Amino acid sequence: MGNLRMRNMDVFSGLRRTLINRPALGVYPSKNWVEELKSSVLSVAPKGLNQITTMACGSCSNENAFKAIFMRYRKRERGGAGFTAEENESCMVNQAPGSPALSILSFHGAFHGRTLGVLSCTHSKAIHKIDIPAFDWPVAPFPVYKYPLEDNIRENQAEDKRCLAQVADLIEQWSKKGNPVAGIIIEPIQAEGGDHHGSPEFFQQLQKLSKEKGVALLIDEVQTGGGPCGTLWCHEQFNLPSPPDVVTFSKKMLTGGFYHTEEYKVDQSYRIFNTWMGEPSKIQVLKKVLEVIKRDDVLKNVRVTGDVLLNGLKDFQNRYPQLLNSARGRGTFIAVDAANSGLRDKVLVKLREKGVNAGGCGEKAIRLRPSLVFEPKHANIFLGTLESILKEL
Amino acid sequence: MGNLRMRNMDVFSGLRRTLINRPALGVYPSKNWVEELKSSVLSVAPKGLNQITTMACGSCSNENAFKAIFMRYRKRERGGAGFTAEENESCMVNQAPGSPALSILSFHGAFHGRTLGVLSCTHSKAIHKIDIPAFDWPVAPFPVYKYPLEDNIRENQAEDKRCLAQVADLIEQWSKKGNPVAGIIIEPIQAEGGDHHGSPEFFQQLQKLSKEKGVALLIDEVQTGGGPCGTLWCHEQFNLPSPPDVVTFSKKMLTGGFYHTEEYKVDQSYRIFNTWMGEPSKIQVLKKVLEVIKRDDVLKNVRVTGDVLLNGLKDFQNRYPQLLNSARGRGTFIAVDAANSGLRDKVLVKLREKGVNAGGCGEKAIRLRPSLVFEPKHANIFLGTLESILKEL
Repeated sequence: MGNLRMRNMDVFSGLRRTLINRPALGVYPSKNWVEELKSSVLSVAPKGLNQITTMACGSCSNENAFKAIFMRYRKRERGGAGFTAEENESCMVNQAPGSPALSILSFHGAFHGRTLGVLSCTHSKAIHKIDIPAFDWPVAPFPVYKYPLEDNIRENQAEDKRCLAQVADLIEQWSKKGNPVAGIIIEPIQAEGGDHHGSPEFFQQLQKLSKEKGVALLIDEVQTGGGPCGTLWCHEQFNLPSPPDVVTFSKKMLTGGFYHTEEYKVDQSYRIFNTWMGEPSKIQVLKKVLEVIKRDDVLKNVRVTGDVLLNGLKDFQNRYPQLLNSARGRGTFIAVDAANSGLRDKVLVKLREKGVNAGGCGEKAIRLRPSLVFEPKHANIFLGTLESILKEL
Repeated sequence: MGNLRMRNMDVFSGLRRTLINRPALGVYPSKNWVEELKSSVLSVAPKGLNQITTMACGSCSNENAFKAIFMRYRKRERGGAGFTAEENESCMVNQAPGSPALSILSFHGAFHGRTLGVLSCTHSKAIHKIDIPAFDWPVAPFPVYKYPLEDNIRENQAEDKRCLAQVADLIEQWSKKGNPVAGIIIEPIQAEGGDHHGSPEFFQQLQKLSKEKGVALLIDEVQTGGGPCGTLWCHEQFNLPSPPDVVTFSKKMLTGGFYHTEEYKVDQSYRIFNTWMGEPSKIQVLKKVLEVIKRDDVLKNVRVTGDVLLNGLKDFQNRYPQLLNSARGRGTFIAVDAANSGLRDKVLVKLREKGVNAGGCGEKAIRLRPSLVFEPKHANIFLGTLESILKEL
């Protein structure tokens, strides 16, 4: 213990300057900042996305990713031309053409944050949005599948098609009404909205559509990124033929930010900027977290534990079909629906009374979000507790 | 040195849990979080503002303050009634009445951040805004004074009146076009926009007007707060008859957030929320900073040093009137205008060549933003360097 304490103190002592300062990163990065990024967030960048902008939280990450998307959209429209005098003047009073009518398409049930831009793309609960002005941006249906997937292949394929047709249609509609779609934002798993999953085929087709329409595809991995799905990035499991244009992150990554392709790099300085642009001390913690993930093969643990949890829940839904259904998940990012919202709430309370902190999402889902070091033995304790509750109901 | 290192290590060791974790503060605050806030940010709250919400950066602070303002506005309109079914449904697709057309009035030359909501209130430079969609919100003129103030009293009073009349007129216009103003956002000193000052009388009248019109007054102290103006909050120097409704902060305060009155407290949980809502380790650093500010009477040093700087600049503008004019400031938050933009840039380069890092703001201002521990002896070194450059020009 004395040794352990000493070691920890040594670690902090070496980070003294990082811990007691709060630098304006974009203006005065430390000499080693690029190296710090390379050995942390950039070392786990999704394949093909070698550009990064760090930010202070998830909402800011999405907000600034939108900005990069709008700038790339207008740059392409402009060809090589510079800003016009009219653009320079009109934007100063929030008017077109300088402040153009451009939109981001999002999905019903989505959650992308709470500041005014991203809140226009959040549609999980009315209480998050009510009373707050919003941009007139289009909202498409996100697939809602029938489970178990293997018994409902045809219906779910039809659901994918229905949603994709709507996306295409909305892009067309908004273009016609003079508010064209510059980008699509989507979660790999709609977390806050109720753990809705889209199939790999859905995401592949969505990417194809986005390329055909010339709009950006932004995958929001704020909730799913950092390992809980059994891979560092959930969208890696979709086998997309090429990288998404932008991937945002926060939460488990300990700092906010977004990865993007060269195409979304902004030419002029200060167009994407924030005084703090993240927090260097958290990059230090992230480096250690990533080191442990690698050293202990933590993502394998997530996959193995996830199998135990998901198989356990599938077993329960077979044995208690009047209580539970639609178990689904990737890694330990798992949910199961209760028969109704009241029952879900009751199960959550009973779990808490028995010492298990689980949450709800969407209308009737029980969601599991254990830490990355949650092991099969812990999963079995949870399943035992849950079954004791199911037996009582 | 050995002792010093040991002491610092001890400090960090006691904060181990704070330093290696990144809690979801709004959901799982630590047991002592309220005490931590009371002994840091709340201990220096502007008079009359005993409510606080912490946030991760300055942009998020203003964005969330806007949300509190919109919610209070609609709550008052609604009387005691709850949300209607129509509101609950329409907001989910970004439409009125759930997502109402409501606006925030801001000022030409203002800077309030870069995410999409607050960017609609930023008007300092076109490059910050161009290509990004904006809300159709009104923009009023901010007073532009003639200096020295003592020689231009009548003209500057007329300027105050002109701007206030425009504010009243815009509130009327936006109400008529169905996009009523719910709040006014203003900096005590327009920093990014060129160090434009408003007189205490201007701010008093603006508050009076905001109360008459029933709109919130938000004072953005992200740049001015934390001591550089010689008081912890710049607006304290305006002798407002009652507290502003909301005051936002970030930067020197090391964490973002906003103070507000009881009236702007949100009834339901999760309506104003962010996963991190700030960073507890920075609250620890802030506690130490505030302790030193008090112990060493640092704000007095700021005022004394500010006098040395401002008097020095006034002396220069008298002796080099073809080069410099309009020296102005509070505390060490000081600026002086160069005769033109090219000259300003030249002076900044020459300062840098001589080892002085100063910045520009607005069209032709040289702005001084020394740290709080910048003393008269440092001010004299700076003035000596600047004069050597003025002599060369």
